Amino acid sequence: MSTPAAILLSGGMDSSTLLWWLKERQEEPIHAVSIDYRQRHRVELECAARLAARAGVAEHKLLDLDLTAVGGSPLTDASLEVPDAQDARQIDTVVPFRNMLFITLAAAYAETRGIHDLYIAPVKDDFQAYRDCRRPFYDSLEQSLHLGATVDRPFRIHTPFIDRWKSELLPLGLELGVPYELTHTCYAGRRPACGRCDACAERIAAFRTNGATDPLPYEIEIDWES
Amino acid sequence: MSTPAAILLSGGMDSSTLLWWLKERQEEPIHAVSIDYRQRHRVELECAARLAARAGVAEHKLLDLDLTAVGGSPLTDASLEVPDAQDARQIDTVVPFRNMLFITLAAAYAETRGIHDLYIAPVKDDFQAYRDCRRPFYDSLEQSLHLGATVDRPFRIHTPFIDRWKSELLPLGLELGVPYELTHTCYAGRRPACGRCDACAERIAAFRTNGATDPLPYEIEIDWES
Repeated sequence: MSTPAAILLSGGMDSSTLLWWLKERQEEPIHAVSIDYRQRHRVELECAARLAARAGVAEHKLLDLDLTAVGGSPLTDASLEVPDAQDARQIDTVVPFRNMLFITLAAAYAETRGIHDLYIAPVKDDFQAYRDCRRPFYDSLEQSLHLGATVDRPFRIHTPFIDRWKSELLPLGLELGVPYELTHTCYAGRRPACGRCDACAERIAAFRTNGATDPLPYEIEIDWES
Repeated sequence: MSTPAAILLSGGMDSSTLLWWLKERQEEPIHAVSIDYRQRHRVELECAARLAARAGVAEHKLLDLDLTAVGGSPLTDASLEVPDAQDARQIDTVVPFRNMLFITLAAAYAETRGIHDLYIAPVKDDFQAYRDCRRPFYDSLEQSLHLGATVDRPFRIHTPFIDRWKSELLPLGLELGVPYELTHTCYAGRRPACGRCDACAERIAAFRTNGATDPLPYEIEIDWES
């Protein structure tokens, strides 16, 4: 791309892999945006900041979006228990239109910097449970951003990983040299990671499937060889 | 309407008139939503709260959206001067996608209450300067909200005043008994209102054109008769 770009960086594996993917392709400056939505685990934002610095982005912008008042999600409400099962997690953790708010806020910031290209990292695994991780949603959102912009200029939402499984991203990221020790995955919010929650279990399985060792420290001993 | 509704209430004349208009038509509860976007004039939010209480809404919800980090608008940045001219005001005061963020945040709150109908008060006067006050934008946004919702259910954005001039709203509001003394208009943020800024001048002209006296106190003497 010959124009500056913005990327939504959560501090997780997918958006971190996207940042390194973008670095390979993008000559103009990259602006990383992270959203402080009062996530229960502040460590995600610290990870995002470290990743942005390591990637050498032009700017890492932290934007504030207090979703606690909107309410009802265990990801922002410490009084609610984090569900163990995958299905429960995917239903209960959704604040309505959260993804749309994140993207629109990032787009607003980008516009103030003259940036009209935003990269985000939904993957194929998200497709089933999350309607707002599907391309028709992003196409519609692009149109809304175009029609709602101060001047008549398209705004593009790039989703280069939308047709890839999460399991395909790790080999790509390992090849790109993503510093995965700086990313955060653990649903319990622990560093060293708990190694027992859903999210940790998935992450560990992904590294093992790829015959790789996760550089992230875990509380429990993991057998990376078997 | 036979289902509960939400309304975006700014504390200004247009959304207040819409609230009283809606009260006439809506049997089910009305939920009012105001956005604390760190507006320079906090008095707007106080007005919104008083208006909501007077209207007897089921709930008045104040949602937080810190746009100061996004930057660049004299409406949120006290260091920037408020432009006098109408044109300058309409260009400079726009934070990118602000309207879209307000509506989406209000929609998120509404969804948590099982409400899928949101009323907002753009008027015909906004059409020229603001692309995000035109119906094609709202149609697109409705589609984005539909495609981005957790379950497949339409979300409606109602804009009953979009084809009316601001000047048509005042006679309607006077008929509906809107307590205009509780609304806020002054760009200088003063109560009593300054009576000299663009916004005050327009408001005063509107009351005079309608042969009415504004119940709001002004710092300067206004001749309502001539």
